[in-house]
Amino acid sequence: MQHLLLINIRQLVGVEKGDNRMSRVAGADMKHLPTIDNAWLFIENGRIHSFGTMDEEHFIQCNDIIDLKGKKTVIPAFVDSHTHLVFAGSREGEFVDRINGLSYEEIARRGGGILNSAAKLNAANENELYHAAHERLHRVMAQGTGAIEIKSGYGLTVEGELKMLRVIRRLKENSPIPIKASFLAAHAYPIDYKKNHEGYLNLIINEMLPQIADEGLADYMDVFCEEGFFSVDETSRLLDAGAKYGLKPKIHANQLHYSGGVQVGVQHKAISVDHLECIGDAEIEALKSSNTMPTLLPAAAFFLGIQYQPARKIIDAGLPVCLASDYNPGSCPSGNMPLLLTIACTQLKMTPEEAINAVTINGAAALELEQEIGSIAIGKKANLIITKDIPSISYIPYDFGNNPVEKLIINGAVV
Amino acid sequence: MQHLLLINIRQLVGVEKGDNRMSRVAGADMKHLPTIDNAWLFIENGRIHSFGTMDEEHFIQCNDIIDLKGKKTVIPAFVDSHTHLVFAGSREGEFVDRINGLSYEEIARRGGGILNSAAKLNAANENELYHAAHERLHRVMAQGTGAIEIKSGYGLTVEGELKMLRVIRRLKENSPIPIKASFLAAHAYPIDYKKNHEGYLNLIINEMLPQIADEGLADYMDVFCEEGFFSVDETSRLLDAGAKYGLKPKIHANQLHYSGGVQVGVQHKAISVDHLECIGDAEIEALKSSNTMPTLLPAAAFFLGIQYQPARKIIDAGLPVCLASDYNPGSCPSGNMPLLLTIACTQLKMTPEEAINAVTINGAAALELEQEIGSIAIGKKANLIITKDIPSISYIPYDFGNNPVEKLIINGAVV
Repeated sequence: MQHLLLINIRQLVGVEKGDNRMSRVAGADMKHLPTIDNAWLFIENGRIHSFGTMDEEHFIQCNDIIDLKGKKTVIPAFVDSHTHLVFAGSREGEFVDRINGLSYEEIARRGGGILNSAAKLNAANENELYHAAHERLHRVMAQGTGAIEIKSGYGLTVEGELKMLRVIRRLKENSPIPIKASFLAAHAYPIDYKKNHEGYLNLIINEMLPQIADEGLADYMDVFCEEGFFSVDETSRLLDAGAKYGLKPKIHANQLHYSGGVQVGVQHKAISVDHLECIGDAEIEALKSSNTMPTLLPAAAFFLGIQYQPARKIIDAGLPVCLASDYNPGSCPSGNMPLLLTIACTQLKMTPEEAINAVTINGAAALELEQEIGSIAIGKKANLIITKDIPSISYIPYDFGNNPVEKLIINGAVV
Repeated sequence: MQHLLLINIRQLVGVEKGDNRMSRVAGADMKHLPTIDNAWLFIENGRIHSFGTMDEEHFIQCNDIIDLKGKKTVIPAFVDSHTHLVFAGSREGEFVDRINGLSYEEIARRGGGILNSAAKLNAANENELYHAAHERLHRVMAQGTGAIEIKSGYGLTVEGELKMLRVIRRLKENSPIPIKASFLAAHAYPIDYKKNHEGYLNLIINEMLPQIADEGLADYMDVFCEEGFFSVDETSRLLDAGAKYGLKPKIHANQLHYSGGVQVGVQHKAISVDHLECIGDAEIEALKSSNTMPTLLPAAAFFLGIQYQPARKIIDAGLPVCLASDYNPGSCPSGNMPLLLTIACTQLKMTPEEAINAVTINGAAALELEQEIGSIAIGKKANLIITKDIPSISYIPYDFGNNPVEKLIINGAVV
């Protein structure tokens, strides 16, 4: 039996008491982030065994004790439910092109965008890709990420997509944190299929999906449903095809237009619809009738300098909000979750409690891991952040540009 | 004689060759950031002795060599020319109040704002203040800050202002980096003088200034020239009074209104006018007739969620731009200069070269240190950043939320 006892925790955050497990937090409830001051937490075999307050409740003694001396806070590790962590090569040239006023279309015409990453990825070998992604993964873990989703979508060929998904599988095998893989061949039409959409859809449906399912390489089916990318009808066909292989949808929707992406996601019982810069009443109504998680990616909006997602409108409609990084080499070359919290608070006007709920319990829900992680609850995995000395939870987004994480605990062990 | 030789530098950035020293970079020239690829740099007694390319020029051999293996870039250390680094206590409560929609006035009425910091500062002892500021200073040095300006202005009493300036003097004495002190008693009217402006001006002019001059505690005279704070006439009187004691002006201007702050600064030959969210043709014309440095503080605009400064308009008018952090517990609790570069590039649409010029040579000019630091030039202090492995200078603002600094060299020594 492995044990770890944390004592004199300044504040234990994101606590669930009793047997009724939350599956997610929505609407006005997002403002609430239950806490226990002056707490202890006992971990057994990687899971949360018990917790309480230092002054009132007895705790089990063990040899492995971390004394936080009343200065450190313990919160659930962050869940980053939308990333493109596996990629080959940075794209800072396009970043400069954008500053100089080049349009998305002009950058694409010069060989930029997703197709730029696809060319680099297809030229890279699997080992290089793995090591670069592994390094990125450990960098974001040092910033508090304790579970992550990673997408394919820079292959756009059978070999390229399989290569990416095998890299993700290798990360799953060699990293302590939970990782989910999404199959995103429908990220962009490759050059060879620019005028042959039917051909590319058939390639995805008839060649990629069977092999991916055969090797068990993906957990989710993703599509970039957007004008100029995949239409609502094409998205629908692809989600149906994925469903035949047991892949549930998590899709890119409504980033640049009122594309119908949210509605087609909801119709297909998507686990989440992600991006959501363009959200009106119809999209809100569709989401209200569903269990689909609205996932916002404001760090990408920050980096591109475009409009932010209407988080308040979504929360005020009684819906949940999840936040994720969108870590990718084009529109968001950062997986820094503490900074994402600052962007959510300062630009989307989410409160610190809402933002932290959005990257813990709601992040877990967006990966169907809400029974395992995302809150401090008995029986859940001990995937936790021990913070540096901070006076309150609000200090995390307030103290921007600094890393609040002192230690990351995964499965009850400091990593 | 102390020596240090850097070899196999991937790129040496911000280089000045020849004897004609730049004093600052303005207009279209800001896009140029001279570099040498595959370089070496020789440091003698803390100053840059010589530099060149690995393949063409001979370099002096010495025992202290750092081999950068063609992977690291060397750039001038960042100059942060506007901070309020000395303060007592964080103000994350006001940050949450703002998210919840409280106005600046309402927050002030509840005891927030500058007066909140003033109350905390006057209650703190000098030793506590020093140690907290020292820790902050070393945190921003780890993020590449190699010279800094620090203001008083949370005292607003004779004792409080002197206490702050003595803390800054102690930082100067105990820190390796150049530090300049600005006297900012005219930061806000304290409660006791809310209806007695004349009384507070007299306190500053007749009691504070003589003591500060006597102890040699300040390098600059600062005033928050803004509606509701100090009027143009009051600013003018204060700058005249400071000038009698040899304190040149560096002032807060045009943050919230077209206040006339820029013009009064220029009239008094201010070294810099800082903030500049509200800049029109009259302000541009005034600046064009001056040597006053326009200094922008976009990280504060980001944190407050207000409009950004019109950097392009200023640069396109042929003027220089300087960027600084505004590190302070209210409107910008971060002194992270790499992140400031990202905000400048993504929100103000400055190119990476413009942004780096703005925080190196122009930052140095805003502290009258352009003959000592801010570029790689023979005879200047070796205050340098050795970066982590990066493929280009653009990668620094692109790779946001990560620290590009591997080592900081101050006066030729790794700190």
